[in-house]
Amino acid sequence: MNMKAQTVALLARVRKSAPLVHNITNYVVMNSSANILLALGASPVMAHSLAEIEEMTGIASALVVNIGTIEEIWLEAMLLAGRTANKKGIPVILDPVGSGATAFRTESVRRILDECRVSVLRGNASEVFSLAGSGVKTRGVDSSLSLADAHVDAARGMAGDLGCIVAISGPDDCITDGSRVFSVKNGHPLMTRVTGIGCGLSATVAAFCAVAGKDLLEATVSAFGFYGMCGDMAVKIADKPGSFEVAFIDCLYSAGEGEIAGMLDISAQ
Amino acid sequence: MNMKAQTVALLARVRKSAPLVHNITNYVVMNSSANILLALGASPVMAHSLAEIEEMTGIASALVVNIGTIEEIWLEAMLLAGRTANKKGIPVILDPVGSGATAFRTESVRRILDECRVSVLRGNASEVFSLAGSGVKTRGVDSSLSLADAHVDAARGMAGDLGCIVAISGPDDCITDGSRVFSVKNGHPLMTRVTGIGCGLSATVAAFCAVAGKDLLEATVSAFGFYGMCGDMAVKIADKPGSFEVAFIDCLYSAGEGEIAGMLDISAQ
Amino acid sequence: MNMKAQTVALLARVRKSAPLVHNITNYVVMNSSANILLALGASPVMAHSLAEIEEMTGIASALVVNIGTIEEIWLEAMLLAGRTANKKGIPVILDPVGSGATAFRTESVRRILDECRVSVLRGNASEVFSLAGSGVKTRGVDSSLSLADAHVDAARGMAGDLGCIVAISGPDDCITDGSRVFSVKNGHPLMTRVTGIGCGLSATVAAFCAVAGKDLLEATVSAFGFYGMCGDMAVKIADKPGSFEVAFIDCLYSAGEGEIAGMLDISAQ
Repeated sequence: MNMKAQTVALLARVRKSAPLVHNITNYVVMNSSANILLALGASPVMAHSLAEIEEMTGIASALVVNIGTIEEIWLEAMLLAGRTANKKGIPVILDPVGSGATAFRTESVRRILDECRVSVLRGNASEVFSLAGSGVKTRGVDSSLSLADAHVDAARGMAGDLGCIVAISGPDDCITDGSRVFSVKNGHPLMTRVTGIGCGLSATVAAFCAVAGKDLLEATVSAFGFYGMCGDMAVKIADKPGSFEVAFIDCLYSAGEGEIAGMLDISAQ
Repeated sequence: MNMKAQTVALLARVRKSAPLVHNITNYVVMNSSANILLALGASPVMAHSLAEIEEMTGIASALVVNIGTIEEIWLEAMLLAGRTANKKGIPVILDPVGSGATAFRTESVRRILDECRVSVLRGNASEVFSLAGSGVKTRGVDSSLSLADAHVDAARGMAGDLGCIVAISGPDDCITDGSRVFSVKNGHPLMTRVTGIGCGLSATVAAFCAVAGKDLLEATVSAFGFYGMCGDMAVKIADKPGSFEVAFIDCLYSAGEGEIAGMLDISAQ
Repeated sequence: MNMKAQTVALLARVRKSAPLVHNITNYVVMNSSANILLALGASPVMAHSLAEIEEMTGIASALVVNIGTIEEIWLEAMLLAGRTANKKGIPVILDPVGSGATAFRTESVRRILDECRVSVLRGNASEVFSLAGSGVKTRGVDSSLSLADAHVDAARGMAGDLGCIVAISGPDDCITDGSRVFSVKNGHPLMTRVTGIGCGLSATVAAFCAVAGKDLLEATVSAFGFYGMCGDMAVKIADKPGSFEVAFIDCLYSAGEGEIAGMLDISAQ
């Protein structure tokens, strides 16, 4: 299926079935992630207490784990939720916010990757590559490769070694499962000037994966394309961060087949 | 007093006296609940530490307890705040977010209802009816009753058994103290596409009850009517969720006697 | 240097160097403080776990400590972060939200002031003066002084005794290091009807101080002036709190030399 038709189909399914997305996420973005999911047509729930985490993940269609303001007790909840999601067979999206900035963050992400089957690891390049351990060959910048090519190469290596989809946000997004690689050109730099836009993409990936069936790679790519496209639409309405955020939420709610046909910019590599 | 005049009077009193509303609420909506209360003219405070909860409730004019992201230590704070509010004689509004979804939530709400005198239980139908225990007759759907009538009947039964006002949000809101029943038709479905709008209604009920004196039933009904009416006004300004939320806050701040006279849609049953 | 040129220069430096501001702040305003810092051109990070606090403060250019929803474990994190910032020599901005309202808040702020070298104490008058202990001479309202003069006098006394800059928000802001005193007339009452605007000013002071070098007094004054001026600009675009907040964020992002030249209203006393 071509990616435009795929994206239209998945978006329609999100809007029709309103999948419940369980978020264990950071304090900064709880409100914006909930609003992003609601605008998209999904149903967000935030819960982190060990007293209810298994039950809550148990009724969800996807799980988002985001370490943005992590503390030790939250890590336990994330691990328990991840294992519950694995038992149930629902997708697990991991957002390694700030991985690499502190040892605690990097190690927390490693533990989650070790103890749960993560479906999609979604972050920016520095976060994702902070996780490239000795077992992961980050082949560095080969003289015959551009920097972008090197990134793609390293991402593919990580995806293969981790056994999950690696999805890197940047000027050009790179999404790979270790064999196939997609590039998404949608999105605008103003998106980096509003807090929670990256985290909201992880939630959006969860919503698309929740309704995708087996091909989580294409669902992740569609989510990236649609989300970035809504950024492209919003910046035409408002080019400053306060009003841009408002317009962006509006676009997540209103964008549809017409915009996808005209603006979605996904390519397979 | 007719409900329009009552609503005008209570709103004026909120704006004049700026009652301090103590919120022990969930992480997702702390910001939006604070902004809703400020727009309305009330003074929000958020505090949850056991080290200060009694003092903080002690200077407040109303208490909101909302279990949206509850954990065990927060439940202790809610119970202590509730007992403090009871001693002081200020209204306690309980928002049972997600009750019924997990046992921990349902049991937490039951404990609050058992150990504190709750003035108003405000939620949607599934949350509220998840609390209907063996002692509460939810008479089910009698063949002679429409579904709405059955809800009203069950709500009235719960209010009588719990000894508190039961206020259910929905396409038609239903508010009852076990004997009198009011219906509010104000409000718009887009309000369900913005996170924290329901929780903000609980905070608004608290602000109205804080200045109401004895008749908390009519204060709750007025709060529902005014709040829903601001949703009706906002959707005429902006019909997508990002810009709708902005317009809704603006309307809470600016709506007054003229709009109430023309748009408030409350009926006694 | 005159204060307009100083403000232009500091703003340019924030936008160019994007200083990392580490915030240990309250749940209500984490999202808005992050957006305010991003709009300004700074880089926010929120982290509060004892497991990473030293590392995180260690890579930051300024620290904000805000007690708005404090609990005991967070106080420990604030103290550790404060000591780390002191060792590293980066500015520490303390926002004593609600100090005076409960003993726990007042005592928490006192402990931070005792155990860390705070660069700037930023709050409203009642918060700041709640901290005037026996060692601080709050000379009271002398019959020969207007109320405003008495405030200035008390603020100067506190700054001298505490050995930090005291910066008080109000209709006229008062900023002093115990010898020099500045007054800022920028700002609009609507700013008090949006939650987190005061806390966002503390974060803005941190961003300006992060790039200021030695003269933190003038940096604090510039931050107050620029921030209040963006409020003055925003209220011309939107005069209700929902849309005002959006416009205010936009102005923090777009305001520059032209507006500063025409609107900044700072005076040395």
